[in-house]
Amino acid sequence: MKVTVSRKAHFNAAHRLYRKDWSFEKNDATFGKCNNPNFHGHNYDLIVSVTGEIDKETGYVIDMKVLKDIIKSEVEDALDHKNLNVEVPEFTTLNPTAENIAVVIYNKIKPKLSADLKLEITLYETPRNFVTYAGD
Amino acid sequence: MKVTVSRKAHFNAAHRLYRKDWSFEKNDATFGKCNNPNFHGHNYDLIVSVTGEIDKETGYVIDMKVLKDIIKSEVEDALDHKNLNVEVPEFTTLNPTAENIAVVIYNKIKPKLSADLKLEITLYETPRNFVTYAGD
Amino acid sequence: MKVTVSRKAHFNAAHRLYRKDWSFEKNDATFGKCNNPNFHGHNYDLIVSVTGEIDKETGYVIDMKVLKDIIKSEVEDALDHKNLNVEVPEFTTLNPTAENIAVVIYNKIKPKLSADLKLEITLYETPRNFVTYAGD
Amino acid sequence: MKVTVSRKAHFNAAHRLYRKDWSFEKNDATFGKCNNPNFHGHNYDLIVSVTGEIDKETGYVIDMKVLKDIIKSEVEDALDHKNLNVEVPEFTTLNPTAENIAVVIYNKIKPKLSADLKLEITLYETPRNFVTYAGD
Amino acid sequence: MKVTVSRKAHFNAAHRLYRKDWSFEKNDATFGKCNNPNFHGHNYDLIVSVTGEIDKETGYVIDMKVLKDIIKSEVEDALDHKNLNVEVPEFTTLNPTAENIAVVIYNKIKPKLSADLKLEITLYETPRNFVTYAGD
Amino acid sequence: MKVTVSRKAHFNAAHRLYRKDWSFEKNDATFGKCNNPNFHGHNYDLIVSVTGEIDKETGYVIDMKVLKDIIKSEVEDALDHKNLNVEVPEFTTLNPTAENIAVVIYNKIKPKLSADLKLEITLYETPRNFVTYAGD
Repeated sequence: MKVTVSRKAHFNAAHRLYRKDWSFEKNDATFGKCNNPNFHGHNYDLIVSVTGEIDKETGYVIDMKVLKDIIKSEVEDALDHKNLNVEVPEFTTLNPTAENIAVVIYNKIKPKLSADLKLEITLYETPRNFVTYAGD
Repeated sequence: MKVTVSRKAHFNAAHRLYRKDWSFEKNDATFGKCNNPNFHGHNYDLIVSVTGEIDKETGYVIDMKVLKDIIKSEVEDALDHKNLNVEVPEFTTLNPTAENIAVVIYNKIKPKLSADLKLEITLYETPRNFVTYAGD
Repeated sequence: MKVTVSRKAHFNAAHRLYRKDWSFEKNDATFGKCNNPNFHGHNYDLIVSVTGEIDKETGYVIDMKVLKDIIKSEVEDALDHKNLNVEVPEFTTLNPTAENIAVVIYNKIKPKLSADLKLEITLYETPRNFVTYAGD
Repeated sequence: MKVTVSRKAHFNAAHRLYRKDWSFEKNDATFGKCNNPNFHGHNYDLIVSVTGEIDKETGYVIDMKVLKDIIKSEVEDALDHKNLNVEVPEFTTLNPTAENIAVVIYNKIKPKLSADLKLEITLYETPRNFVTYAGD
Repeated sequence: MKVTVSRKAHFNAAHRLYRKDWSFEKNDATFGKCNNPNFHGHNYDLIVSVTGEIDKETGYVIDMKVLKDIIKSEVEDALDHKNLNVEVPEFTTLNPTAENIAVVIYNKIKPKLSADLKLEITLYETPRNFVTYAGD
Repeated sequence: MKVTVSRKAHFNAAHRLYRKDWSFEKNDATFGKCNNPNFHGHNYDLIVSVTGEIDKETGYVIDMKVLKDIIKSEVEDALDHKNLNVEVPEFTTLNPTAENIAVVIYNKIKPKLSADLKLEITLYETPRNFVTYAGD
């Protein structure tokens, strides 16, 4: 019996959408006010979903405490109260769009999970805009 | 890397569930108080989800401003503060159930998107009742 | 010890904002698209708050089942799936703005409560617009 | 046209995570404070999702009133305000983790639905922890 | 300038509404299914609101980290994953209604705050039922 | 009849909590990770509440469209997608805590309202931390 187990988390961060190799004008035309050189920020809400067989012994797919600890060390410690462009190595040359942040989070959590578990990341940049990535 | 990008929107409308070709009694037996001839109404909440490859240049699947504008012109301008049965051509003969409204919204938005993007519509008729349609 | 006890409820209704004694032009200038003659509608969310002393015997200010029954008979049975302008006597000549609906609900519930209890009504017309009335 | 129709419901219950055939020490090491012998409890939020073809006659996949009645008889009447371990037969020997509760709810609702309808259960144990089961 | 600062928290617990000095029949007539001798439970959501002058130096009414620590030691450590009737001394003879729980939480937090700060407790027993107590 | 009318809005911004006239060490001891020199950010949610008499003619305390326009020009245009410390004149020397931001927003909106209307500002810095200011 395959069940998906999901855990919500959140972090606050500053970011700016732009490419260093583009002119300000091109960045401005593409990213508008998200290209503000002084940065803006978000409360990012995160849903980490793990799919696998229910363990017959425990009744768990994965112990929520284990999942919570992985999210803390891989996501919250790395991204919370940070400037994504300036302080997070993954975004040195990668534009921190919601799409790219979700992929980065996926790539950080996936190796910490048992290989038979499927992972899906849902990231809310605002309550009205969100993205989902499942490694496909 | 395939990512799904979702945008929430909303509109308020009046409607009545019934078929013109049925008797009042049959409509009443089937649709109950939703068949009130004087109409009732809802705050419809909408989630428009678009799945595609991340553009390597921009880091976007689709620019949220573009998606927001499509939702405004195709859904909000067409349905907000309207009587669905009386004022919206798609429901002249089609019963405006949540299921049918989701299909109508899908059919209005799909042609405005690049053909390689997959679309899914989630429509909340109330906070406790909602439907999802993905063109299948 | 004075405690406020609150209960959420909801109803769906159609309405139109206008005054019969005004011209269409004046109604249109004042109420805009809310003056649509074919009506529009909302999922109204309601919070009924009752303030009073905790009963030493039961530990209740008011039994929630009692409050729930009052809300059902006075509000839900009277307003749910109705056209407020056409079917609800209180709005025959009263414009069903959120403000006026909250006052009407207050006036229907207050006489059903013990006289020493204070009542406050919060009515959400949409998740972003709401009003509060406490009999003052 | 396949549409998924979802209905939210909720119930409150007490439970304890443990296995009768394990020592207290092993239960404690595995389930931590969820193994409290005096029980703790949750407001469980439930989303029941049914996927099928839209009925051309009614515009419904399933009548929400029918679905609501099934949820009431199979889930709310059976689980609401109950101690899952003590009073619910399905958990006499099955550990009432969120995963197992979702499977039990699936197995209770599925036989009540027409065989061509697909069912998915989402169960929130808390607003931050939830599970999904679709019979796979 | 007086500002109210609020912090949300939550805890899960089992409880039963009844009075030891009443017969089962009287408890049953008064508290219905909340009188289940095997207990039921809730995810309690808590809002702790503190009102006072903004400190000119820091721009804070109270440091949120300080408030968060008080809530953890006084409320979460004392009530989370507990059986309120059996394990929490305040409810040995006090019926754990939402009203009484709010008063108990108020009385635990108030002495930990500077005397010039006003305190208000809002406690959600379910998303639809909540109570507020401010020491009056 | 006095009614309070509330409107929700939101803006995203970057900020840093610190005082220019304090050492980094003192700022760090007081504001912790909120003192990150590279900034972090939030989705601020705002509730603007206006209390006054219901206008007998219109049934409004204030036209929501008027209130929405005031919020747009005074708050959203001034703060959305901005770095509060760097780009918003009110915070050149004022620490942008949630408390101080609420006071600044109050002071910007109050003069735009008719003098007989009472104003209250609720500002959510995160879904779990919020402040309220009413000019007292």
